[in-house]
Amino acid sequence: MELRLTSDEIIKLQKGEDIYSALKRAGIYIIAPCGGKGICSKCKIKVIKGDYKVKSSGKLTIQEKETNISLACQTFPRGDIIIEIPKESQLVIGDKIAIAKTKSLIDHLKSYNVEFSPITKRVFLDLPHPTISDSISDLERLKRSLQEIGVRNIRFSYGFVSSMNKILRTSNWMVFLTYVDRESLYPEALFLSPSESCNRRYGIAVDIGTTTVVIYLVNLLNGEVIDIGSTYNSQIRYGDDIITRIIYATEEQGLNDLRDAVISDINTIVNSMMQKHSIESCEIDSASISANTTMSHIFWGLDPSSIREDPYIPPLNYFPLWKAGTAKLSINQQAPIYTLPCVASYVGGDIASGILATKLHHNHEIALFMDIGTNGEIAIGNNEWIVAAACSAGPCFEGSGIKCGMRATIGAIESIKIDPTTYEPIIGVIGNVTPQGICGSGMIDAMSEMFLTGIIDQKGRFIVGKTDRIRKGDEGLEYLFYRSDKHYKDIVLTEVDIENLLRAKAAIYAGVMTLLNEIGFTIDVIKKVYIAGGFGNYINIPKAIMLGMLPDLPQERFIYMGNSSLTGAYLCLLSEELRKEAEEIASKITYIELSVSRRFMDEYISAMFLPHTDITQFPTVAALLSSLMSPKQFWILTNPQDNMS
Amino acid sequence: MELRLTSDEIIKLQKGEDIYSALKRAGIYIIAPCGGKGICSKCKIKVIKGDYKVKSSGKLTIQEKETNISLACQTFPRGDIIIEIPKESQLVIGDKIAIAKTKSLIDHLKSYNVEFSPITKRVFLDLPHPTISDSISDLERLKRSLQEIGVRNIRFSYGFVSSMNKILRTSNWMVFLTYVDRESLYPEALFLSPSESCNRRYGIAVDIGTTTVVIYLVNLLNGEVIDIGSTYNSQIRYGDDIITRIIYATEEQGLNDLRDAVISDINTIVNSMMQKHSIESCEIDSASISANTTMSHIFWGLDPSSIREDPYIPPLNYFPLWKAGTAKLSINQQAPIYTLPCVASYVGGDIASGILATKLHHNHEIALFMDIGTNGEIAIGNNEWIVAAACSAGPCFEGSGIKCGMRATIGAIESIKIDPTTYEPIIGVIGNVTPQGICGSGMIDAMSEMFLTGIIDQKGRFIVGKTDRIRKGDEGLEYLFYRSDKHYKDIVLTEVDIENLLRAKAAIYAGVMTLLNEIGFTIDVIKKVYIAGGFGNYINIPKAIMLGMLPDLPQERFIYMGNSSLTGAYLCLLSEELRKEAEEIASKITYIELSVSRRFMDEYISAMFLPHTDITQFPTVAALLSSLMSPKQFWILTNPQDNMS
Repeated sequence: MELRLTSDEIIKLQKGEDIYSALKRAGIYIIAPCGGKGICSKCKIKVIKGDYKVKSSGKLTIQEKETNISLACQTFPRGDIIIEIPKESQLVIGDKIAIAKTKSLIDHLKSYNVEFSPITKRVFLDLPHPTISDSISDLERLKRSLQEIGVRNIRFSYGFVSSMNKILRTSNWMVFLTYVDRESLYPEALFLSPSESCNRRYGIAVDIGTTTVVIYLVNLLNGEVIDIGSTYNSQIRYGDDIITRIIYATEEQGLNDLRDAVISDINTIVNSMMQKHSIESCEIDSASISANTTMSHIFWGLDPSSIREDPYIPPLNYFPLWKAGTAKLSINQQAPIYTLPCVASYVGGDIASGILATKLHHNHEIALFMDIGTNGEIAIGNNEWIVAAACSAGPCFEGSGIKCGMRATIGAIESIKIDPTTYEPIIGVIGNVTPQGICGSGMIDAMSEMFLTGIIDQKGRFIVGKTDRIRKGDEGLEYLFYRSDKHYKDIVLTEVDIENLLRAKAAIYAGVMTLLNEIGFTIDVIKKVYIAGGFGNYINIPKAIMLGMLPDLPQERFIYMGNSSLTGAYLCLLSEELRKEAEEIASKITYIELSVSRRFMDEYISAMFLPHTDITQFPTVAALLSSLMSPKQFWILTNPQDNMS
Repeated sequence: MELRLTSDEIIKLQKGEDIYSALKRAGIYIIAPCGGKGICSKCKIKVIKGDYKVKSSGKLTIQEKETNISLACQTFPRGDIIIEIPKESQLVIGDKIAIAKTKSLIDHLKSYNVEFSPITKRVFLDLPHPTISDSISDLERLKRSLQEIGVRNIRFSYGFVSSMNKILRTSNWMVFLTYVDRESLYPEALFLSPSESCNRRYGIAVDIGTTTVVIYLVNLLNGEVIDIGSTYNSQIRYGDDIITRIIYATEEQGLNDLRDAVISDINTIVNSMMQKHSIESCEIDSASISANTTMSHIFWGLDPSSIREDPYIPPLNYFPLWKAGTAKLSINQQAPIYTLPCVASYVGGDIASGILATKLHHNHEIALFMDIGTNGEIAIGNNEWIVAAACSAGPCFEGSGIKCGMRATIGAIESIKIDPTTYEPIIGVIGNVTPQGICGSGMIDAMSEMFLTGIIDQKGRFIVGKTDRIRKGDEGLEYLFYRSDKHYKDIVLTEVDIENLLRAKAAIYAGVMTLLNEIGFTIDVIKKVYIAGGFGNYINIPKAIMLGMLPDLPQERFIYMGNSSLTGAYLCLLSEELRKEAEEIASKITYIELSVSRRFMDEYISAMFLPHTDITQFPTVAALLSSLMSPKQFWILTNPQDNMS
């Protein structure tokens, strides 16, 4: 009996085994906060073919049941079965390509020339045994030994003290003390570990995006990334964008729902990683969280409502070092959680984190930083000043709001070429498996190739009849990238998708131009462009310029940063100096509110063409197009105002 | 329809009313943590006479039901009814005599010449409203205003921040900020109150004795004691003494049971006081707790087991300023709780507190401090040194372990004279009501009068036939102090009671003598004797000397302190300098362990006579007795060794 996935993986089923258990056995993780007990109703799968028995349908809707959605832990195959794991159930752990890329992170950290200093410190204490003549209390005994090694005025939380006396006695008064000691506060004792325990220490760096959650599990003894886990932010079920979620947070239980969703995502990933690597929760002694302002507030269960109310003031930008127990994270309950500092309501810790990762703030030359996530934040600056703005790009480059969109994980089409004569596509898939969908970098390729080969016009509309691959689908016209020869769905890009992508790229480019205008500069002052976002393994810069998403600058000025928010969280997990740098960055940034800018709206409308209504802003694209086109075609392209219907 | 109490109070019953509601209406409080909902099974009463319907018997035992015990909130009288409120249900609030006595506390505080400085501080902040151009976050705005008035480096707890933004906005950015700022730590913000709220501030001073719990509700604006509440420590159901409770704490759920019992006692008293005075829980913003070392640990839910294991080391002596939420107290959850510092396993915060109240540590002359509670702690010292010990006196002077014993509250016989010719007693009752039992000062009077009139001999045995009031009761011989002419029980002192009292007084005197011997002094170096304990309104010093409980020193050297542990808690609630003095006292005390002292055992056995086997230690008693007795009687008395059977 076989279980087959749409990614072509095959798992031999054991007798009477449910699908959740079979997947787990094969190292395939899906969202199941309850651990496969049929309680959480989250381990949804879709049966494509095969006979099976369902024990319970939990909280599934009638619609879901009618479309063969069932709960993996409650589904028992009766023979060979083919299933699809829907987006909302996907949880990726141990992506080998992604892990391989993290090997350079330690060098990146070293390049800052800072001391290796995790959020927590650890000392070994060999305490003198108490006697009738040396009868000071346990806590006084600890304090005395700490004073001898120069740790003074240490604070002790209730959580620490309540478990202290047992550990001191069972470990024969030899213990590791983990504490936190930020220069700006008195040190605080966190917890004791018995000396017999091997001195392992782990931390997690977390990027909470509006659309995705990505986590590094880090060895705090050497800075190595042990594993990566990622998933969609389950808050999506309450709304795709930040504003919808803030509104939902004001409903009764709304804030709790949103908080529980993201905490459950993080815990599910972390618990799976702990199980995989045989790590105890108490061994994860710190965490670093990078997120936009709204996500940071929701993570901590703090009311974000004032963020969307004029004059757009968040409750806080600098988060105290609260504990994992307060955050409800399933790591050591005493672990301090470092939250990257936010700048304003719509420029959050992810941007301070990203800028930290780029070193933009170290250099005299002016650079542009673009984080192309759901919110689309942009910063321009150097070692003296930084301005920043947010342009609400939407979640499409992260795979959300696009019919066949997906995150840049195994099975994602990440690169596309289209033959200019046959109009047939050549696709590159992450992991070289059967494609499951298209990720951000694939979408950029698709759009620019379709434009270049004339499959779509400069407004993003299909030129019908150009090729059979342009066909009518459920949602209107679409282009077929991958025809499934099995029971799975075809991979297409629809005209609706293209319009969404057009909006996204227009918002990004308009944001850059408005920000430049605000500070009185033109695009040529930009000596470096840092591109951040979870597109894929790379982003094809010339193709993104071709779309009019990125400014038309020499290619060598562009540096693709990947998930810079996560890189910054990693850096802050490991260095106190870099935590301080992140705080300096946040305090230095001047925030510019685009939502009230008329200029931004004008720029946005101008950018709703391929590449732009003003082709002179894209000279290299103009040159390329003129070499490919007849003079008449080029005239039409470069004078879109005459062509507006 | 009438409800009559054994104290003769009469309450008119309303139709269909339960007894709990009727008592509450009349301002009579009984233990009912659930507030009369039939859940907690604690509001036990005993019906003496009358017909009634019981709705539910909750968790009452068969034995209890058979002896007419029922739950007040589940008992509906069908006509006139007479009830008794058993000890474990008693809760006394608003004792007028006790409140009157607290009027002098403010002068006592003033006599230290210290600044009035409660644990928390409060400032009024009128914050500039946020605008697009002044768009720092709420927390940064608060910090900025605090910096302007010199409050720097303030810490913000999660509890503070999570409610901050709502209060700032609803109060139009005008708020009171309550914070704590102990010199040895950075300040910490606790909570915000809207500016419209009247600026009322309350605190509680709590004495947690092994046997009783007493609480002052204090107005923090002027130091006035608004009310007093007291009850038996419900931990008694798990054991009378400290050692039994420590053993119980090691059982599963044992520590939780003990903690819940005392927290529920405190909360029941505080909730009743809040209701009576229309005070909101959030207005009680600090607490000061004075208790022995074991009680302090159990109050905080900390494992006390090492206290009774050689070498007798408590987990901590100095307690951090944790919050009411952590302690599970029903006051403002952010309120800091000051715990009086302990000295050693058997000399706790109540002793540091008591010494603080006496000012023994201010003066050069050597003084003796005796706290005659369940544990019987003794300290000797002056402004340079202090030694202390504990002598396990037992709970009898607090009314526990004595057949008709009770606390020094309304209805307690607090003074007794016995006519030397008729052997008839003349009793004084607190509140001049029908007597309910005998409190500590009454027991001392009773013992010495019975001894002086020859009703008992020097071993504490009744001289049968002396008077009809000596009679045979359920537990052996007893002396009848008050004959009930109603349905209530007679008030007696039994031979078993007398033996318990003899043990208690012997332990106290032996403790003093052993401690003096340890430091190489004799009794005449003692220039002052401070007597603390919950005996009653006064203690008759000559009678206590007559018993051999107190050393035979001139009467003017004795000062009766009442509940000095509670007085110290009150002082520490109101002054930072006195909190520091309490800590200095605790660090200065040298603890001497009597349980390993052979000398203590010898002294104890010698003191098991009235007044003592060595009458030369009590010259004034010897003189009195010789004047009252025939030469032969006096010879027998002064040579007890010849008289030992």
